[in-house]
Amino acid sequence: MRKISKQNPLPLYYQLKEIIQEMIENEKLNPGDPVHPERVLCETYGVSRMTARKSIMALVNEGVLYREQGRGTFVSKPKTKQQLMQLKGFTEEMSEKGLKTRTRILSFQVKEATKKIKHHLNMDEDNNMVIEVRRLRIVEDEPFAVEVVWIPRDMCFDLQEDKLEGKSLYRILKEKYGYVLDYANQTIEPIMLNEYESRLLNLDPKSLALLFRRKTYLDDGRVIEYTKAIYRSDKYKYEILLKP
Amino acid sequence: MRKISKQNPLPLYYQLKEIIQEMIENEKLNPGDPVHPERVLCETYGVSRMTARKSIMALVNEGVLYREQGRGTFVSKPKTKQQLMQLKGFTEEMSEKGLKTRTRILSFQVKEATKKIKHHLNMDEDNNMVIEVRRLRIVEDEPFAVEVVWIPRDMCFDLQEDKLEGKSLYRILKEKYGYVLDYANQTIEPIMLNEYESRLLNLDPKSLALLFRRKTYLDDGRVIEYTKAIYRSDKYKYEILLKP
Repeated sequence: MRKISKQNPLPLYYQLKEIIQEMIENEKLNPGDPVHPERVLCETYGVSRMTARKSIMALVNEGVLYREQGRGTFVSKPKTKQQLMQLKGFTEEMSEKGLKTRTRILSFQVKEATKKIKHHLNMDEDNNMVIEVRRLRIVEDEPFAVEVVWIPRDMCFDLQEDKLEGKSLYRILKEKYGYVLDYANQTIEPIMLNEYESRLLNLDPKSLALLFRRKTYLDDGRVIEYTKAIYRSDKYKYEILLKP
Repeated sequence: MRKISKQNPLPLYYQLKEIIQEMIENEKLNPGDPVHPERVLCETYGVSRMTARKSIMALVNEGVLYREQGRGTFVSKPKTKQQLMQLKGFTEEMSEKGLKTRTRILSFQVKEATKKIKHHLNMDEDNNMVIEVRRLRIVEDEPFAVEVVWIPRDMCFDLQEDKLEGKSLYRILKEKYGYVLDYANQTIEPIMLNEYESRLLNLDPKSLALLFRRKTYLDDGRVIEYTKAIYRSDKYKYEILLKP
């Protein structure tokens, strides 16, 4: 058995965290298995209750373990991987994987753009109106992402909520308006869900998630959409490919 | 002035959050500017103290605002963008941008691999030893990332700490060992820093960050490294390019 040592430059709780992690990596602990209670960890490794708790909490924060109220702490299932590199509609991407999706339109508004949104959409000074659509994405009957998309009103002048209902926005952009999507820049940031988002996603408040901001360009250089999307990351992780 | 309304389906605190966000987006509030104290927000928008606090906290969690102990809440500076798609050494990438970097080796060990690490590195059943290097990346004299890399020992059998000190690992892999790096898969997850990591990165404990797990392949199909890297995301955001 690996021991915890005060001579090791790593903090005690971090050493214990690594021991638990290795038990999982070596399949001595498997998804769904309970982790020893703090009391047992203290006795086994000769650390304080506080140290044991910190180790567990660090692993819970990383998503390696999860807690169930009144039941204890367990090893998480590995997360499903999602490719991030393709500029594809959500509906199309998920259905290619054989996943059943739905989309709930939370709001559909034509409104005045903020300076920042106008800037992102490269809109002229005297062009002020945008379509703002807030949608909840659902995969296999479970909430997956909350998105807000802004589109210059003059680029989709007759788009209405009932025309989008149950349809893919990207498909409408291509088929109804004849736009050719060329590429998108997408930034990635970690966020902590606020109460509203966590309720929509059916997750604990303060759960961690990823915030994507996407700017999509047409083949003629115009920006067709600016999107802010919050993706759950408790069951999914997102993958990219790096090339030299 | 925009008003907050109980008729609006969005929660009150979320409406107030959007109002503050729009003030920033419309440059009525600029980076470094203080945000009105909660008391003033309550009076101006007719909401409770609790609602005002929730709005502010949601924006702090998103990194749009930051708090300074005893001074108040201010508008954050925009984050610096970092491209994520290129398989490049850290040293090389940063120096191309004209940024001054250093790397501190926190530990260098030859050790037995866990089952999971062996699996990631596609190592044979009877091949057990890996080199594990933990490094702190520093950009412009500020900690930027904490990384742990695992390399099959037999692929860099004579690599030692003093040979890596002050050098780029990727350059050593290419120039000393003649390896040709082909591509890497990298997953992205949000995490909350634990105490050890936050101390290394000189950030508040529980700050949010991104965890990257990278698996790098050689042109002959072998895996040369598996890396877990934690990147700060308070001052940086990470960008990828999406193509159809």
